[in-house]
Amino acid sequence: MKIPDGAKLVFKGVIFEVYQWQQKMFDGSLATFEMLKRPDTVQVIPIVGDKILIAEEQQPTKEQFHGLFGGRVEESEHPLDAAKREFLEESGYEAQTWETLKVYTPYHKMDWTMYMFVARNCHQVQKPQLDPGERIFVKEVSFDEFIDLVISKQFWGKEFSLDVLHMKLDGQLAEFQSRLFGP
Amino acid sequence: MKIPDGAKLVFKGVIFEVYQWQQKMFDGSLATFEMLKRPDTVQVIPIVGDKILIAEEQQPTKEQFHGLFGGRVEESEHPLDAAKREFLEESGYEAQTWETLKVYTPYHKMDWTMYMFVARNCHQVQKPQLDPGERIFVKEVSFDEFIDLVISKQFWGKEFSLDVLHMKLDGQLAEFQSRLFGP
Repeated sequence: MKIPDGAKLVFKGVIFEVYQWQQKMFDGSLATFEMLKRPDTVQVIPIVGDKILIAEEQQPTKEQFHGLFGGRVEESEHPLDAAKREFLEESGYEAQTWETLKVYTPYHKMDWTMYMFVARNCHQVQKPQLDPGERIFVKEVSFDEFIDLVISKQFWGKEFSLDVLHMKLDGQLAEFQSRLFGP
Repeated sequence: MKIPDGAKLVFKGVIFEVYQWQQKMFDGSLATFEMLKRPDTVQVIPIVGDKILIAEEQQPTKEQFHGLFGGRVEESEHPLDAAKREFLEESGYEAQTWETLKVYTPYHKMDWTMYMFVARNCHQVQKPQLDPGERIFVKEVSFDEFIDLVISKQFWGKEFSLDVLHMKLDGQLAEFQSRLFGP
């Protein structure tokens, strides 16, 4: 959810801000409520021919994992610009067309929006330029491999995993494939 | 994940604590890393005959929703004791036997564990005793209704939703039903 109007910033860290406000309860009494704000994030599903690019990634505090390209939206940056920047930095690729696939708000007590984009007709234009806290390898997978990755327990982004599991149960994966690979 | 050894508490709010530490990056440089700690939580799946009890709930900052009974573990409280306390307060019920069903850590940047219990042979012993920030109604549902609730978009606890969707896809729901309702 969004930080309520009138909430007061009580701490600002390197990622998280903490806000508090007085919330009226059902009996009319007041209680101090608290929630967090963190930078919004972007994720990219890049299409190359009939394949999808994914990131094989290592970070200092995580096990190796497969995920989508993406990262944090910087202050006053538009989410689509952040998606293009992160995708270029992490993969060295650019895309001809971009489309917003989905917008998620993963955690109730946190003002945090995650934007998911499809990047179509991707082609490599440079070498990846990684941060010192990133090790990323670009991997091409088929649509079926992509779906298996997204619904695996290791995948980051439970909301997207849930959507894809629902599509699988409801027989909507072929439609989703057409949606991703475009007209 | 757990707060790393040596991390420093830099803010303590009413729910969240913020910790920071110096993290060595892949090139040997250091960066300030940050993560959160919040009270652990418990959730209860109460069995009454061939039915499951769920909570129809309103809170001051949320839409009405259906969920499991439960809440926060208090300081130095054992998770099972918290589950018994929250279940009694919210429903007025007690159970004859308790079993840990699953333990989740929902969010990577937060030291937060969610314990899920099955409470069997439940019976009402008093009226619910609700906090001023709670409106809860007890509802009896069948196993199939319970599954539909858990996999619905409104359900709180994406990890459990994912588990149940996987069970549904893999044809393991009958086994899960036996597991819940016990020997």
